[in-house]
Amino acid sequence: MKSFYFILIALVAFSCQPKEADKVSTAKTDPLPSWNDTENKEAIINFVTEATKEGGENYIPVADRIAAFDNDGTLWCEQPLYIEMVYSLATAKQMIADKPELAKNPKLKALTDKATFEKNPELGIETAFVLTHAGISDTDFGYQVDMWADSARHPRFQKRYPQLIYRPMVDLLQYLRDNQFKTYIVSGGSSAFIRKFSDGLYGIPAEQVIGTMLKGEFQASDNTYKVIYTADLWHNDDKEGKPVAIQQIIGKKPVLAFGNSDGDKQMLEWTSTNKLPNLSLILQHTDAEREYAYDSLSHIGTLKEALKEGIAKGWLIVDMKQDFKVVFDFQQEQK
Amino acid sequence: MKSFYFILIALVAFSCQPKEADKVSTAKTDPLPSWNDTENKEAIINFVTEATKEGGENYIPVADRIAAFDNDGTLWCEQPLYIEMVYSLATAKQMIADKPELAKNPKLKALTDKATFEKNPELGIETAFVLTHAGISDTDFGYQVDMWADSARHPRFQKRYPQLIYRPMVDLLQYLRDNQFKTYIVSGGSSAFIRKFSDGLYGIPAEQVIGTMLKGEFQASDNTYKVIYTADLWHNDDKEGKPVAIQQIIGKKPVLAFGNSDGDKQMLEWTSTNKLPNLSLILQHTDAEREYAYDSLSHIGTLKEALKEGIAKGWLIVDMKQDFKVVFDFQQEQK
Repeated sequence: MKSFYFILIALVAFSCQPKEADKVSTAKTDPLPSWNDTENKEAIINFVTEATKEGGENYIPVADRIAAFDNDGTLWCEQPLYIEMVYSLATAKQMIADKPELAKNPKLKALTDKATFEKNPELGIETAFVLTHAGISDTDFGYQVDMWADSARHPRFQKRYPQLIYRPMVDLLQYLRDNQFKTYIVSGGSSAFIRKFSDGLYGIPAEQVIGTMLKGEFQASDNTYKVIYTADLWHNDDKEGKPVAIQQIIGKKPVLAFGNSDGDKQMLEWTSTNKLPNLSLILQHTDAEREYAYDSLSHIGTLKEALKEGIAKGWLIVDMKQDFKVVFDFQQEQK
Repeated sequence: MKSFYFILIALVAFSCQPKEADKVSTAKTDPLPSWNDTENKEAIINFVTEATKEGGENYIPVADRIAAFDNDGTLWCEQPLYIEMVYSLATAKQMIADKPELAKNPKLKALTDKATFEKNPELGIETAFVLTHAGISDTDFGYQVDMWADSARHPRFQKRYPQLIYRPMVDLLQYLRDNQFKTYIVSGGSSAFIRKFSDGLYGIPAEQVIGTMLKGEFQASDNTYKVIYTADLWHNDDKEGKPVAIQQIIGKKPVLAFGNSDGDKQMLEWTSTNKLPNLSLILQHTDAEREYAYDSLSHIGTLKEALKEGIAKGWLIVDMKQDFKVVFDFQQEQK
């Protein structure tokens, strides 16, 4: 009788094992293992914990859990040059090598010269996108980016550029998604370029990438249909462009935004005035050894106004040196 | 002993009831109960069944299951006037009532007259959006739409406009989502207007609504931040504008598109050349009794070129009279 009883109890227990997909881990595992145990980490975990506590005063309905991340300098390295600019410079060189007469275009010629870009990074980016991303279908653009990404190496770390993603940010994105946040990239870089990497590197699908966009044109001939990028800028997704695009494309104010430069200021400001509980975060690059130490001194990723405002308003200022246990995966592997 | 045995069996059975969210119905329930059992219904079910059969030759990876639906005349009634135009006309009238000097603007004045709009519907829509949707924040725009939607009634059916959604289309959207398709609205109407209804009526969240958009402007003053719609058109989401916006915003070609007019032709063409299995569908309005019978004769929802092409290319031509068991919910309730 006793053994029969046990068998049935075991049967109940066994039959009721939740499937893998349903399993909610009850063990107290660290949701952000690549972060040091600092106040910033605690604040992030508190925010997410409260946001998901049904009935709590800081609860955020699932449909409103929109999290917006800048890309360059927030999710991956932007020094010594934005990765997409590295691609654009290489493409400009290749275009002139393939068709030497293109060197007559002074802008394209200038684009092969890193120093010229650095003197005027803002103009440089628009020019670069128009000259090296236009007149091409998304598919063909994709092939070019793939080929480049396979061969190009970062000058200091000697790694392929897609390896220059910050592990703590990837962990944070996953942690947010595990808590039913919808993670978006909102970047000054072009959506076309970022989409080549976003799913594989960050788990962010194409439709959750918002970036700078050239005007698209629908071309139809002989039952073949293409959307081609033209040489006109349609949307500059920097500064004011970020909240505007979020409103146009997502139609909801984020509850969390994470940036690293003055180009993210407006997105952080806008997020910080959400009526729902919200969190604005800035990543400060303070780690010359593992990455780079820069802010207002850099012509790339300038962080001055946003930092001042963030400190005054109590946004979380994440310090790479203090808060990141790991920066890049390849550094961890080396240990 | 026997009763003890039964109790334990019952315990096993009871404890192992799957939670509502996990339940996968194994009963052969009809996934499209509001559709008649026609060839079109069978073709839709076959497409979805094959698309989700892992290892099958017509399998579509989950990430690529993008379904794009036109709104006016596809998801809800567009006769005798686009619903958003009804709103715009009412708003123009209200604006002039509030500020009589606005009547000096000939375009706004013309907008209060339905006959003028009908003579030139294309110009009418752009003018209407610019005049009645601009200079206002999304929140304020939302209040206005809510107020209007509560009081306005459809002239023939005497129902509130949000009641004029097609039950078979709502069922189809749900069926697709149950099979992990991501359902989008891609409409010539404005995203701002559609988003007021999309989640409640169709289960489509704001971020999956793509429509015509006025240029947005970020306004900051005294720590208040707003995105305001200006009087410039940013994107006309009709005809060529539909595939272009899909590429810009979703970044993937749909595997299913559903429209009802020549304004959807390019989206349907583009979808029909997806390398993955795909389905292009046209809803033909053939039911004068339960809804309206119209196509090339109507100044709204003209269906001529798209129908010709759809028949030639084997797209599914859904016939409202033949294929819809129910059109509107309120008609079913009356029976």
